[in-house]
Amino acid sequence: MNNNERIFFANDYASTAHPKLLQALVDTNFVNTIGYGEDRYCNEAKELIKKECNNENVDIFFLVGGTPANMIFISSVLKSYQGVISPDTGHIATHETGSIESRGHKVITLRANKEGKINANQISSYYDKYKNDPNSLHVVEPSGVYISHPTEIGALYTKEELIDINRVCSVNGLFLYVDGARLGYALASEKNEITIPLLAELCDAFYIGGTKCGALLGEALVISNRSYTHDVHYNIKPNGGLLAKGKILGVQFKELFTDNLYISICKNANDFAQEIAKTCKEVGFRMLCDSFTNQQFVIIPKTILKELEKKYEFAIWEQYDSENMIIRICTSWATTKESVEELCLDLKSNRIN
Amino acid sequence: MNNNERIFFANDYASTAHPKLLQALVDTNFVNTIGYGEDRYCNEAKELIKKECNNENVDIFFLVGGTPANMIFISSVLKSYQGVISPDTGHIATHETGSIESRGHKVITLRANKEGKINANQISSYYDKYKNDPNSLHVVEPSGVYISHPTEIGALYTKEELIDINRVCSVNGLFLYVDGARLGYALASEKNEITIPLLAELCDAFYIGGTKCGALLGEALVISNRSYTHDVHYNIKPNGGLLAKGKILGVQFKELFTDNLYISICKNANDFAQEIAKTCKEVGFRMLCDSFTNQQFVIIPKTILKELEKKYEFAIWEQYDSENMIIRICTSWATTKESVEELCLDLKSNRIN
Amino acid sequence: MNNNERIFFANDYASTAHPKLLQALVDTNFVNTIGYGEDRYCNEAKELIKKECNNENVDIFFLVGGTPANMIFISSVLKSYQGVISPDTGHIATHETGSIESRGHKVITLRANKEGKINANQISSYYDKYKNDPNSLHVVEPSGVYISHPTEIGALYTKEELIDINRVCSVNGLFLYVDGARLGYALASEKNEITIPLLAELCDAFYIGGTKCGALLGEALVISNRSYTHDVHYNIKPNGGLLAKGKILGVQFKELFTDNLYISICKNANDFAQEIAKTCKEVGFRMLCDSFTNQQFVIIPKTILKELEKKYEFAIWEQYDSENMIIRICTSWATTKESVEELCLDLKSNRIN
Amino acid sequence: MNNNERIFFANDYASTAHPKLLQALVDTNFVNTIGYGEDRYCNEAKELIKKECNNENVDIFFLVGGTPANMIFISSVLKSYQGVISPDTGHIATHETGSIESRGHKVITLRANKEGKINANQISSYYDKYKNDPNSLHVVEPSGVYISHPTEIGALYTKEELIDINRVCSVNGLFLYVDGARLGYALASEKNEITIPLLAELCDAFYIGGTKCGALLGEALVISNRSYTHDVHYNIKPNGGLLAKGKILGVQFKELFTDNLYISICKNANDFAQEIAKTCKEVGFRMLCDSFTNQQFVIIPKTILKELEKKYEFAIWEQYDSENMIIRICTSWATTKESVEELCLDLKSNRIN
Repeated sequence: MNNNERIFFANDYASTAHPKLLQALVDTNFVNTIGYGEDRYCNEAKELIKKECNNENVDIFFLVGGTPANMIFISSVLKSYQGVISPDTGHIATHETGSIESRGHKVITLRANKEGKINANQISSYYDKYKNDPNSLHVVEPSGVYISHPTEIGALYTKEELIDINRVCSVNGLFLYVDGARLGYALASEKNEITIPLLAELCDAFYIGGTKCGALLGEALVISNRSYTHDVHYNIKPNGGLLAKGKILGVQFKELFTDNLYISICKNANDFAQEIAKTCKEVGFRMLCDSFTNQQFVIIPKTILKELEKKYEFAIWEQYDSENMIIRICTSWATTKESVEELCLDLKSNRIN
Repeated sequence: MNNNERIFFANDYASTAHPKLLQALVDTNFVNTIGYGEDRYCNEAKELIKKECNNENVDIFFLVGGTPANMIFISSVLKSYQGVISPDTGHIATHETGSIESRGHKVITLRANKEGKINANQISSYYDKYKNDPNSLHVVEPSGVYISHPTEIGALYTKEELIDINRVCSVNGLFLYVDGARLGYALASEKNEITIPLLAELCDAFYIGGTKCGALLGEALVISNRSYTHDVHYNIKPNGGLLAKGKILGVQFKELFTDNLYISICKNANDFAQEIAKTCKEVGFRMLCDSFTNQQFVIIPKTILKELEKKYEFAIWEQYDSENMIIRICTSWATTKESVEELCLDLKSNRIN
Repeated sequence: MNNNERIFFANDYASTAHPKLLQALVDTNFVNTIGYGEDRYCNEAKELIKKECNNENVDIFFLVGGTPANMIFISSVLKSYQGVISPDTGHIATHETGSIESRGHKVITLRANKEGKINANQISSYYDKYKNDPNSLHVVEPSGVYISHPTEIGALYTKEELIDINRVCSVNGLFLYVDGARLGYALASEKNEITIPLLAELCDAFYIGGTKCGALLGEALVISNRSYTHDVHYNIKPNGGLLAKGKILGVQFKELFTDNLYISICKNANDFAQEIAKTCKEVGFRMLCDSFTNQQFVIIPKTILKELEKKYEFAIWEQYDSENMIIRICTSWATTKESVEELCLDLKSNRIN
Repeated sequence: MNNNERIFFANDYASTAHPKLLQALVDTNFVNTIGYGEDRYCNEAKELIKKECNNENVDIFFLVGGTPANMIFISSVLKSYQGVISPDTGHIATHETGSIESRGHKVITLRANKEGKINANQISSYYDKYKNDPNSLHVVEPSGVYISHPTEIGALYTKEELIDINRVCSVNGLFLYVDGARLGYALASEKNEITIPLLAELCDAFYIGGTKCGALLGEALVISNRSYTHDVHYNIKPNGGLLAKGKILGVQFKELFTDNLYISICKNANDFAQEIAKTCKEVGFRMLCDSFTNQQFVIIPKTILKELEKKYEFAIWEQYDSENMIIRICTSWATTKESVEELCLDLKSNRIN
């Protein structure tokens, strides 16, 4: 961090990459490999991820970002008259500039709860209503479910919730897809019940986020339902997602899944976030919801925020009421112990209760 | 290069990145920047490119690859009933898995000459025929022209050719777009007449290729016709092309356009390629066309090819006749003097005249 | 009606066409005209509609149905990153199988009131929130507003409501489009304040429904904002909406707008519907909302419905509660005085208060 | 025909509909039917067409025109990275304003012969080249074949040619689709070898053209490969092709396939066209190719054309050379004996040999 900069808690994608990943890129720089993701590093990284899945029977593609991962998977699987069910706060529904619609598909939104989740009953009700509509040919066919873990505001699905959603999907022939942009922070949380093998078992596909968990760029799309593999594979290129130097993704993911780096990076960030959350609560700030991952959404008086912003950079989420704002305090692999301690001290000196 | 590998002349995207670019990524790793390409490095790189253009009035976006650059620009500019004219050998027409069509647009192909070029007369004739068609509403409207410089087989448009194409486009309201996947190799060639300022003057947009000219990934899309800027900007995200850590593209392009690195990398590769071409001709191999850039397309007897392939890796282009193959010998920033000398020696020991 | 059929009140598109329209088709059968809607009948019909608009400066296209009219207009006007605002009960949002999404655009839904309307404040709030979003490039740009008049459940916007919506649209650069699938029934209602000249003045485009107002098929899309005309015109063919024998639409619309036929057909249907509504209320049935057009949505005990359905055909809308259903009773040009009287008698003999 | 009009030979879609079809619409006007093509007339027409196919195991949809039939079928069957092979003169490649591309798919063109045909070898060669391409993921996958019968210039495929194309398609997993916009004229020709049962046997789908063979509008899409049925069915609505009053298509097709009307209408037109062709040849005009259907493409001196055009209306096809034009002389159900005799007389008085 430069001296003239504020201490950074705005997001988890501001520093470039964990140094081990950069070093691995330097170390493999002069190895000539075949292009387009067919190289040895991609293959090795895939093997490591299969081990994490505890499942050889998955297919893996490395993609450049979360939006292309969501768009390529979902648009590969849907037919042109089909749509995908999402929480109304889901990333595909709110912050991907209509990427799914740009590929011709409706995002069917269900009301998320305050943690950003939808549940099996909601999906089931929606689907049943569709199925019983005598004019169902006039209605977009709901053909899959998109959720995020953790959710957009850092909450975690329970194992039971995911099993229930999986059951509704299976019964009705819906695919289940999990956006894991910040999956590492879930996996590293003590409260988390959703392991990678469980995702591989219960989902048709999910992605393991790299960009927000220590990589320069890159997400690992894991496909358990291999009937989708060929279409996804072929759709990467026309959708602009195929890197000539695909190896740069393989090298990074190989590193992330060596010596537990992926989890340890994220655990560190989680621990810092929990410390900050604890301090926030102690000093009287309310939290939008309980988050056990690296994002903390804090309701904070505007006057205090103004003071803190002189020294710290947060993400402004939205206005809570005339007196208070909701801010996101976010940690990452690059967050330092010193900065967290300093923030906690400054929070304490602004206590409101 | 590992010892157990063949000497590599297959393409220009097998080694990761010029060491200076990797070093710059390492050096800037801990600088927290704003995301999505709005950071200081992207801004600095844009200023450097504007200087190269000798033109402040261009807009620049850094994209992850050539296919997304082509697709995002062209689909942003075309209305849904419009198409783009391309040589039938053009990359968008042949090797991007129908990316332009996937966005709803026809690629209208004109027959390329043996160098991979189309000319102003062809464009003009096609457009006139369209305009004079009384049923033109039943025909896709040709609304722009796509060419590559250098072409797919390494040839260079002359200044006069480009001016003529520009004139036909201007007269008929067609945009002109140049795919510069390997632009560096053109710019570094003594035979080249098409400078960056000329491209900025004659084209509505073009891109400066990074991936095949020394970067890990990344292309710089330069838009001279700023009426297109807003639409292109907005379309990057839904098309999956917006990196959260956009700074990794800015850092690299800043480096490429500092101390003339971009040209010097490519000049080196060109010089090696010319030496190889000279040797090929000396020993009696025909070339598909004269190429003054880093790709040499050589017609080579199958028997000799089989021998050389034990030691060297080339790209097999296509069968020429029952006795001969066309191969591509390709150099890059990572090609070494030693490997070129060794290849030339081995070519000479296989002379056929 | 065949003797063995139930008396029909299910919809307004079950009989083919008003006899005058069929006769006009017979009369003009052997006149050879130019194809694709450029013929004399289309031209004459356009002139008649311009007179109805009290405005020469509109452009008119005859399309085969409401879904293609909505889809062709909206997709012609939107850029690929843009979406259209609609009531969540709007036809494009619910019953066109994602036609707008299939062309790449998000339908942004606002909560409709119980009459199926949205208001200017809702639009304004949504747009302001979008405009003030620092990450607006990550959000679909709302670029126009779609409403129906009458609404899906037969209600009428007031002049003041439409003026307010127009003002919000103008201020924010949003287009305003009105779906007039049943416009005739609005125009023929005494309660209606929205005339055709007012639509031509306040909307960028609207369509005058033929299919549900007495034609075999066909809707007249009226474009007041002529900057959209060329794109709409060109998009009809690739979207499959251009009839070789376009004259069959012109002949019908010419007839509909001769001697006030369009209004008189619909007034008749309205009068019958009002009589039925009056009787429903008299006998104690609640209405979903006040409708002054040809559709009446009635909350009716299941037991009574079961009895009535032996003799009459209604559209089942949805379950109201465990005891009651919502049904639609719908009249058209083909509804007879006798059938209405019979229905009213039977309703009275099933009175519940 | 009005007195002040020229005698009409320009196309086969200028008069509205065969009187029997109009009469059937009048006769069924007041029968209230269910909407959207599920009515009794559509069902009866489907049964008649199944009998023509000599095959109960086909599915039939009535669509409003040829472009939507082609677009809906092809885009329902193709995945997003797939394209369809077509003669370069095929209607989808030239005169549908990029309708297939607008749905995201490349039309892969093969050079047609002078009759407008492609053959099995061409398809096989193209497919083999694709299959053997090591970078096939960078190339649009050819997944089906589109041809027209008769071709765009009135020529007929032989049974052997169609069997060969079918074989290549079957072997390579390509669908085979036949555009029958003018199928009636083929079926009515003595030279025709391609019957409806043969089409049902050899094609995955084809359509029986109504618009150009006596109907107001409408084409009957026949699907033999029922694995496609559900997707095609569902795609009609979002593509704007579903008529509320679907019965108007059923009523017409029922009539066309009663008492052999479809064939007898077209035979009449063919006979007139043959008479004209014979006269053209007698008087020394060359024909573009032998056509045994209702379209005759004649190479005619400009001076003579100018004279004839005072009295007759033809379609100007294109310039043949500086002295001659190619015109299309086209007959239909509405062509009269008198007009043909008059034309032949006038041709004879302009003989050039």
